[in-house]
Amino acid sequence: MSDTLSQLAQVLEARKGASPDSSYVASLYHKGLDAILKKIGEEATETVMAAKDGDKDKIIYETADLWFHSMVLLAQQGLGPDDVLKELERRFGLSGLEEKASRKVD
Amino acid sequence: MSDTLSQLAQVLEARKGASPDSSYVASLYHKGLDAILKKIGEEATETVMAAKDGDKDKIIYETADLWFHSMVLLAQQGLGPDDVLKELERRFGLSGLEEKASRKVD
Amino acid sequence: MSDTLSQLAQVLEARKGASPDSSYVASLYHKGLDAILKKIGEEATETVMAAKDGDKDKIIYETADLWFHSMVLLAQQGLGPDDVLKELERRFGLSGLEEKASRKVD
Amino acid sequence: MSDTLSQLAQVLEARKGASPDSSYVASLYHKGLDAILKKIGEEATETVMAAKDGDKDKIIYETADLWFHSMVLLAQQGLGPDDVLKELERRFGLSGLEEKASRKVD
Repeated sequence: MSDTLSQLAQVLEARKGASPDSSYVASLYHKGLDAILKKIGEEATETVMAAKDGDKDKIIYETADLWFHSMVLLAQQGLGPDDVLKELERRFGLSGLEEKASRKVD
Repeated sequence: MSDTLSQLAQVLEARKGASPDSSYVASLYHKGLDAILKKIGEEATETVMAAKDGDKDKIIYETADLWFHSMVLLAQQGLGPDDVLKELERRFGLSGLEEKASRKVD
Repeated sequence: MSDTLSQLAQVLEARKGASPDSSYVASLYHKGLDAILKKIGEEATETVMAAKDGDKDKIIYETADLWFHSMVLLAQQGLGPDDVLKELERRFGLSGLEEKASRKVD
Repeated sequence: MSDTLSQLAQVLEARKGASPDSSYVASLYHKGLDAILKKIGEEATETVMAAKDGDKDKIIYETADLWFHSMVLLAQQGLGPDDVLKELERRFGLSGLEEKASRKVD
């Protein structure tokens, strides 16, 4: 659905078996749910602050942090970005139709 | 980059000219930056609560809300999901290259 | 310990038995824990925004909102501001001793 | 108004001139407003998580953290807990009357 988000989800999945000190994501998994949720709260606050500063680079950077940590939560819960994108499609009447059509062509 | 996020970004762009009472998004734009940021804080808190409940459907729903309102912020700032996805690619060494390559093969 | 916070705690306690439509606090109790927690997330975000605006009146107003909703949480949990103030005293080596001593002198 | 909060406000005021490495509060002042606001976002999230856990000791601990960092913000802005308590009194029709009466007796 999203190539970038799908690739990132694969990276997050792959790090599930890794030792806590091998990467930041592995250490977050090891610390557990509360550590991940604390980061979501933090990054939301930092996104708000970046926007109040009117600093577009920081808004992009902090939103990336916020989406990234949301994706760590999804992975930790056995979910993925496709679940969220499908919910957005459902809500806004967006169609995966074009996408599916082009896949049929494949 | 992401078909769903791109389509949603187009919807958000189209609503910029709409009257405040024509849609939720148009009313958010009209209320301005603080109203959008308040929603980001709210949805982050609701994502945290859904995760503490261990309710996967709610986690998906609230994460969709969080991403959606992040995208309203991006749109309001003249930015879009591609800016965030590019930052994630840069950070995690993900390549849009493979994606483009495979499309050529199609 | 704090006359204002103690009085407010009494008000919050008194509204516990009230019907949901009799007051804002009664309606919050009725909606339950998640509604109270959502407000704490909201008011924290609004405090952050007020501070970024450098608007001292708004900082006071939003911090009052934040403390107030924290106190609704404490009341809902059978706790009160004295529990929090005692924790702060313990942490910072503040003594209620001088206070009590001076009251005896009164 | 609140002896504990007043004492804490004095501690926070005293640390304003201290070197950044002399205490946690001094280091927060030195890092500046964003670091303080980030902590308010963090502690609000941790209060929410503690409440979802139904852990009363943690609720007290995290609320103390939240109030404490609010007070660091107030101090950094040249404000104090009395400003917030007066706003709460105004809002809820609480009277400092009893308090003032007893002071007259002094």
